[in-house]
Amino acid sequence: MKSKHIAITGGGLVGSLLAVVLARKGHRVEVFERRPDIRKMKVVQGRSINLALSDRGWRALQEAGLEADIRSIALPMTGRLMHATTGALTYQPYGKEGQAIYSVSRGLLNQQLLACADDFDNVSLHFDYRCDELNPVSGTLGFHHEGQSVEKAFDHIFGTDGAFSAVRNRLMRNDRFNYSQEYLSHGYKELEIPSLPDGTHRMRHDCLHIWPREEFMMIALPNPDGSFTCTLFMAFEGKNAFENLRDAESVMKFFETFFPDVIPLMPTLTDDFRDNPTSSLVMVKCAPWHVQDKVLLLGDAAHAIVPFYGQGMNCGFEDCRLLSEWMDEFGDDWHGLFSHFSAWRKPAADAILELALRNYIEMRDKTADPSFLLQKKIEARFAARHPEKWIPLYSQVTFSHIPYHEALANGDRQDAIMREVMNRPDIESVWDSDAVEMAMLGRLSAPQ
Amino acid sequence: MKSKHIAITGGGLVGSLLAVVLARKGHRVEVFERRPDIRKMKVVQGRSINLALSDRGWRALQEAGLEADIRSIALPMTGRLMHATTGALTYQPYGKEGQAIYSVSRGLLNQQLLACADDFDNVSLHFDYRCDELNPVSGTLGFHHEGQSVEKAFDHIFGTDGAFSAVRNRLMRNDRFNYSQEYLSHGYKELEIPSLPDGTHRMRHDCLHIWPREEFMMIALPNPDGSFTCTLFMAFEGKNAFENLRDAESVMKFFETFFPDVIPLMPTLTDDFRDNPTSSLVMVKCAPWHVQDKVLLLGDAAHAIVPFYGQGMNCGFEDCRLLSEWMDEFGDDWHGLFSHFSAWRKPAADAILELALRNYIEMRDKTADPSFLLQKKIEARFAARHPEKWIPLYSQVTFSHIPYHEALANGDRQDAIMREVMNRPDIESVWDSDAVEMAMLGRLSAPQ
Repeated sequence: MKSKHIAITGGGLVGSLLAVVLARKGHRVEVFERRPDIRKMKVVQGRSINLALSDRGWRALQEAGLEADIRSIALPMTGRLMHATTGALTYQPYGKEGQAIYSVSRGLLNQQLLACADDFDNVSLHFDYRCDELNPVSGTLGFHHEGQSVEKAFDHIFGTDGAFSAVRNRLMRNDRFNYSQEYLSHGYKELEIPSLPDGTHRMRHDCLHIWPREEFMMIALPNPDGSFTCTLFMAFEGKNAFENLRDAESVMKFFETFFPDVIPLMPTLTDDFRDNPTSSLVMVKCAPWHVQDKVLLLGDAAHAIVPFYGQGMNCGFEDCRLLSEWMDEFGDDWHGLFSHFSAWRKPAADAILELALRNYIEMRDKTADPSFLLQKKIEARFAARHPEKWIPLYSQVTFSHIPYHEALANGDRQDAIMREVMNRPDIESVWDSDAVEMAMLGRLSAPQ
Repeated sequence: MKSKHIAITGGGLVGSLLAVVLARKGHRVEVFERRPDIRKMKVVQGRSINLALSDRGWRALQEAGLEADIRSIALPMTGRLMHATTGALTYQPYGKEGQAIYSVSRGLLNQQLLACADDFDNVSLHFDYRCDELNPVSGTLGFHHEGQSVEKAFDHIFGTDGAFSAVRNRLMRNDRFNYSQEYLSHGYKELEIPSLPDGTHRMRHDCLHIWPREEFMMIALPNPDGSFTCTLFMAFEGKNAFENLRDAESVMKFFETFFPDVIPLMPTLTDDFRDNPTSSLVMVKCAPWHVQDKVLLLGDAAHAIVPFYGQGMNCGFEDCRLLSEWMDEFGDDWHGLFSHFSAWRKPAADAILELALRNYIEMRDKTADPSFLLQKKIEARFAARHPEKWIPLYSQVTFSHIPYHEALANGDRQDAIMREVMNRPDIESVWDSDAVEMAMLGRLSAPQ
């Protein structure tokens, strides 16, 4: 493969990993980031939902030689811990013994990945460069930098500038470019559970905490410094909604009703609730992701999803891994590579968005339902005995590299079977019986 | 109502009609159009699909006092005339005796409406003003005009700048603004049937001509100068598709196969086919259409649809009529007016897009189907005998002012009834019998 001069717009998680991937293949890479270098910032701005790194993300990091750099800042979470209003706790493992997802801070991870990219002689990082022009035919980018306009030409341009991508915004002017941005009617607010004075955690730190309340939920992910980042997801408007929590009194009343067990853990609850923004959740779809052999969108710029399956970053990292594999296949045929990526990766991106939307309902509503938890136990038992026949949907998404759209289709098929199983009137007493197991085996071998 | 200083961005069909509507209410109106004044242009550029003005459009023009100005440039079409490959013709009336839709040229209509707006002392028309900034909080617009940047503040801003609206593009940066642009996989190319040497038409000029060919179609609308504007709608890619008609030979072969009767009527067919662009068809949806009491989108800027029901302009004109009515209701409450318009008009816009998409299938495929034509005859007969019980869907859309979403729902209910009727094995012989009529009456009075 000939060495090329490549621009990456956006030095976020996907952009900085992609820089490493392309640098390893010998290309000359320039990364242009709109914001200042977060490695030099005291307070990291921007989105700060804690991230859950899972197998797809790890594999991409591993193949880029970066796994060891990230392990040190990741905290394993082996399951969900559901908090009932009564304070009762229910634990549900995510996968098999030894499987976990990993809580990481977006800021720390980004700093680490930028440092890794910076180590390559053939990577240049440019900060405070705001992209405001793109000529997708000539491969020219225009930037605003320190009050000046800067123009540069490249062999290829990768747009990894996130859900509000400037590169994609320019492509919207192209004929036959399909695009949609849709906001959820729910938003989120981050809150904090600080560490104990000795720097330890106030709750179990080996799991993801969920307070499922049907129409809304709170979650908490552990941080290495002993704190938890909590996120309240809820409708903007309606009965239990952000619009009605406008003062300390209404916030306290709401928490006393729905989250009484966290009040003692959040000494600055009402201040944080007032001071932290209520943020929206956007879903972006577009097609095609490429222009000829010049421009390719990856990550959130191509497919921004909602955070409820913990797959946004993992999906973006998997973009980088697959691109790397397909680059080896396509060699110098960049047009072929970009068309292939755009066509083959799009169904996966659409599927993980659908899965993430469904998982919001699952997390906020079904995880509080004993019947749902029993179903998961039956699936886990069956999967343990017939691992070649059944991988639970959550595991397909989180602990496998099955394309997301295949996971979605497999999951729908499993769901039809599980609806039948759960309809047995005696299911609570026979759930771990041979009869249930044989019925599932029978359904699996029936013609579809 | 207090007189306000109002900006209208876009002096197209909807913008110029809106200027008249607002001027009549005593507001000071400034219209900013990106292009030069089309009244002074020799060749009118831009989209030129001939338009079909129907009752919704006429009513809006009438209430704005403009009906007489437009009647003189409109040609009535009382029905569809289907051309089979054999040359056989089938006529289907659009409505009842005396009902028609009217062929008008976009360019002429726009010129006329601009002239009407220009007659008002409280309307200023500005041409060659390209909108490139909008502050929806302060009500400020920025324009590019003759190499200069111009900034102006207004009490209210109406965005009527079409499917590729600059005002809407600016609103896309607002939090929680939903937006989608989706292109059909089909495009269109305009062709011409010139007049005879004596200035008369080469085909019947009192109808809309259709060459339905299942997966694609051509239509022709008459012009007052004796010519017809023909439009070929077809897939960009595939078997019978624009991508395969790249030279005179393939075009001639295609027309000999599918449209043999028009070849003698189109002396410059292969040249026109080569020289005229193949254009795409975009559908735009967004929400909300307003920002506080400052900005409101109308017409294609808010809801660009496909042209297959002939309702794009009619829908935009109806926007103006309803806005005018609601302005009288809301008085000085502009925020209330804009919220109301955005919330109440959106379902109608979504419905007419759905109806237009369905009508493409109907026009290109079903109009060639004898069973479909029989169904329309049965509906017309029943509607004539029970006008208070049944208005055919086409008439609800074209010859009534029933909100589009109600028409869509009524149409779906009628369709369920007609499926039953058409399933009678003897329907061809009993279609005009009392038995069929009674069966339809019975179904209509049954609980839904």
